[in-house]
Amino acid sequence: MTNPILLTRAFHYACECHAKQRRKGTSAEPYVNHLADVARRVAEATGGQDINLIAAALLHDCIEDVGVTCGDLVTAFGEDIALLVAEVTDNKSLEKAERKRLQVVNAPKKSDRAKMLKLADKASNLRALVASPPDWPMSRKLEYADWAEIVAQGLRGVNEALENEFDAAITAVRADCG
Amino acid sequence: MTNPILLTRAFHYACECHAKQRRKGTSAEPYVNHLADVARRVAEATGGQDINLIAAALLHDCIEDVGVTCGDLVTAFGEDIALLVAEVTDNKSLEKAERKRLQVVNAPKKSDRAKMLKLADKASNLRALVASPPDWPMSRKLEYADWAEIVAQGLRGVNEALENEFDAAITAVRADCG
Repeated sequence: MTNPILLTRAFHYACECHAKQRRKGTSAEPYVNHLADVARRVAEATGGQDINLIAAALLHDCIEDVGVTCGDLVTAFGEDIALLVAEVTDNKSLEKAERKRLQVVNAPKKSDRAKMLKLADKASNLRALVASPPDWPMSRKLEYADWAEIVAQGLRGVNEALENEFDAAITAVRADCG
Repeated sequence: MTNPILLTRAFHYACECHAKQRRKGTSAEPYVNHLADVARRVAEATGGQDINLIAAALLHDCIEDVGVTCGDLVTAFGEDIALLVAEVTDNKSLEKAERKRLQVVNAPKKSDRAKMLKLADKASNLRALVASPPDWPMSRKLEYADWAEIVAQGLRGVNEALENEFDAAITAVRADCG
């Protein structure tokens, strides 16, 4: 499979998986807009060199959010992409607080590629808090930023461009909260 | 710009442009799902060789539907992609019946690349008539299929795989209409 075929299949697969899902901000954008944003960040920060990582960015929430299995992804996209997605997937059978704690604990143990994907994901989520804010009190936005910053401490040292984007996004959230 | 960066930028741009737009079928999918479907069809039918054509497939409705200009596309993606999109863009200042007539008249005059894009677009639209039918009487679906088939006559002779997909999609619509 050539790279453009792989990427367009991943675009289409992500669109179909998340067709009924919306972002939680005021703009209520299609969920796939976030996936496209994360994929673009990963592609640009890595010079477009790791095609499987870009595909995994497009697919990174389909196990967690819509019940696709790792086996489905192996069949459709191969083991490397499927394992990358699995590596950034939270265990939804756990309580939210425990999932958030585990993100902090597990971040430094991730592979370099998963670290990049997670940094891009967090930067995208932080930017969305300003561009299309959910109906959260300011304190909750600041708590999210504080938590994301702690997770990101375990993701550093791999890609400076993504770290800079993350840091700028944190700054924007805090500035927006006054 | 490497190919993966170009494609992920185009996908993200399409997501943003069409964020508020839905398909007209019962599933009311995000509009970008159609664009991803057309891009995937074009990529697969051409072996992923023409990256600008795949990007144009992702962007093919953004002039017609959301007021992006050809100049905007030149700035963001270069002249070749912008001109491809312009070549498959209807003039919305005309009445719908006149636009449909012009599609028939102009199809054989299009470039080979625009012909492929339009065939993939029509096949995607026909498939959607069955997979997520709009609230149309059967007669209207059949009229759409008849018109699409006449347009497609002017698009043939360039890519056999896309022609076969188009023909199968027409057959599926007519079978669905009994």
